Amino acid sequence: MRLAASVEFIHTATLLHDDVVDDSSLRRGSASANAVWGNKASVLVGDFLYSGAFQLMVSTQNLATLKTLADASAVIASGEVAQLATANDLNTNHQDYLDVIEAKTAALFAAACQVGGEAARTSASQVEAVRDYGHNLGMAFQLIDDALDYSADQEKLGKTVGDDFAEGKVTLPVLLAFEAGDADEQAFWRRTIEDLDQTSGDLDHAKTLIAKHHALAGTVEAAEQYGRRASDALARLAPSYGDAQDIREALQDVIAFCIVRGH
Amino acid sequence: MRLAASVEFIHTATLLHDDVVDDSSLRRGSASANAVWGNKASVLVGDFLYSGAFQLMVSTQNLATLKTLADASAVIASGEVAQLATANDLNTNHQDYLDVIEAKTAALFAAACQVGGEAARTSASQVEAVRDYGHNLGMAFQLIDDALDYSADQEKLGKTVGDDFAEGKVTLPVLLAFEAGDADEQAFWRRTIEDLDQTSGDLDHAKTLIAKHHALAGTVEAAEQYGRRASDALARLAPSYGDAQDIREALQDVIAFCIVRGH
Repeated sequence: MRLAASVEFIHTATLLHDDVVDDSSLRRGSASANAVWGNKASVLVGDFLYSGAFQLMVSTQNLATLKTLADASAVIASGEVAQLATANDLNTNHQDYLDVIEAKTAALFAAACQVGGEAARTSASQVEAVRDYGHNLGMAFQLIDDALDYSADQEKLGKTVGDDFAEGKVTLPVLLAFEAGDADEQAFWRRTIEDLDQTSGDLDHAKTLIAKHHALAGTVEAAEQYGRRASDALARLAPSYGDAQDIREALQDVIAFCIVRGH
Repeated sequence: MRLAASVEFIHTATLLHDDVVDDSSLRRGSASANAVWGNKASVLVGDFLYSGAFQLMVSTQNLATLKTLADASAVIASGEVAQLATANDLNTNHQDYLDVIEAKTAALFAAACQVGGEAARTSASQVEAVRDYGHNLGMAFQLIDDALDYSADQEKLGKTVGDDFAEGKVTLPVLLAFEAGDADEQAFWRRTIEDLDQTSGDLDHAKTLIAKHHALAGTVEAAEQYGRRASDALARLAPSYGDAQDIREALQDVIAFCIVRGH
C-alpha cells in the first residue's frame, strides 16, 4: 500500500512539474494547479510530494524496492530533460522517440509493477515478468496518449487537445505524417513543429495530414504491439502468483482499456 | 562521501527550484540557471538532481541515513510551502519566522551533520550532538543571510541584494524594524512588504529604518546566540570522536565564519 501510494505521489509530482514546464492550463478536466495557484506553488508542492514519496518508500525498509524506485525517478527526470532536447526536431528518429516515452512514462509503470513483485518477495523471473508487463503497458499507454492529442474529444480527454502540437512535441503521429509527406507537407511540419510559427487552422490542417497518411492508425498499431507484449509478460506469471484469477483478468483488461480509451 | 554528495545534490536542487520560485536572476555571482536556460530546464534539472541524490543515498544501503535525509527533504519542502504562506504578512511572529528558517535551511544542515554521525555508527548521544551542531549552525547561517540581504556588498554577496525586500519576505531585520517603528514607519512597511507597492528609493529607506532601530544588530545577536549553541554542541562530542583536533577546530571556525562573513 505504501509503495503504491509512493508511486502515486511521484506521478502527481511529475504532473505538477510537467504542467509548469509545458504551461498547461487543463488537467483531468479541471484547471491545472499552476493555472489556479501559480507556478511557485506547483513547483514546491511537487517537491513536497517527491519527498513524501521518498519517506513512504523508506518506511517500508525494503532496499530492493528503494533502489527500483530511485532508479525509476532518475530515468524519469533524465527523460524529461531529454524531451526538452528532442522537442521541435523532426529529424528525431523512431528509436529516440521510443526512448523518450520509455523514460517519461514506461519507466514508472515498470517500476510500479516491479516493486509489487519485490514486496511479495517472489522469484527474480516473476519480478522480471511483472516489470515487463508494466514497461509494455506504459509504452502502449503513452503511444495512445500521443494519438489522443490529435484525435480526442477534449471534454472526454480532460486535458487540452492539441497541446503537443502547440508545443512542437515530436510524437509518433507527427513523425509518421512527416515521413510520408510530400515537400509541401514537410514544409508545413517544419514551420509549425520546428519553428513554432503557427496560425489558427494549423492544428486542423495537421489533423488532416495525419488522417491522410494513416498516422493515427500507425500509432495505434505500435501501441497494440506493446499491448501484446504486455499480455505475453502476463502469461509468464506462474498460476501460483496470486490465486485470484480476477486479478490476472483485471491486468489483462487494463491493456485493452489503454488502447481503446478515449481519455 | 556519497552522503555528502547527496546533500550537495539536494541543496543544489532546492537552489534551482528556489530561483524559479523567487524569479532570481543572480546566484553565486553569476546569472542564475533559470535566467540562462529558463524555468523549464531549472525545474527538470532540479528534479534530476533530487533523484540522483536519492540514488546515491540508496547506494549506501544504510536505512538510518535514508530516513534522516528523507525526513529532512520533507521538512525542507514543507518549509518552502510554509514560506509562501507567511510571505507578505507582517503579523508573522518571531517563532513562525524561526520555524520557516529551521525548515528551509537548518533542517538540511542538521541532517547533513547527523548522517555523518550515523555513517560512523557512533552512539545516539554523539549523533544528537552533531545534529544539534548542524541545526544551530544552520539557524545562525540563515539569520546572517537575512541580514546580508539588507547590508551586503552585492559583488561580494554573489546574489542580488534587496531580493528579500523586493519579494516582501518577512525576515528578522524587517520584523524588528517594523515592531520598533512608529505609525508612519509601519505604514511604509505595510505598503512595501505586504502590498508590494514599491518605488525606487524604498529599499534605501528600508535600510535607513533598519539601521535606526538597530535591526541588523538584533539579527546578528540572534545569530550569535545560535552560534554559541552550536559551539556547546561541539563541546559535547567526546574527544575520541575523531582524534584530529584540527577537524574540531575547523567546525568551530565555520561557526565564526558564518557570523562574520560578508557573503
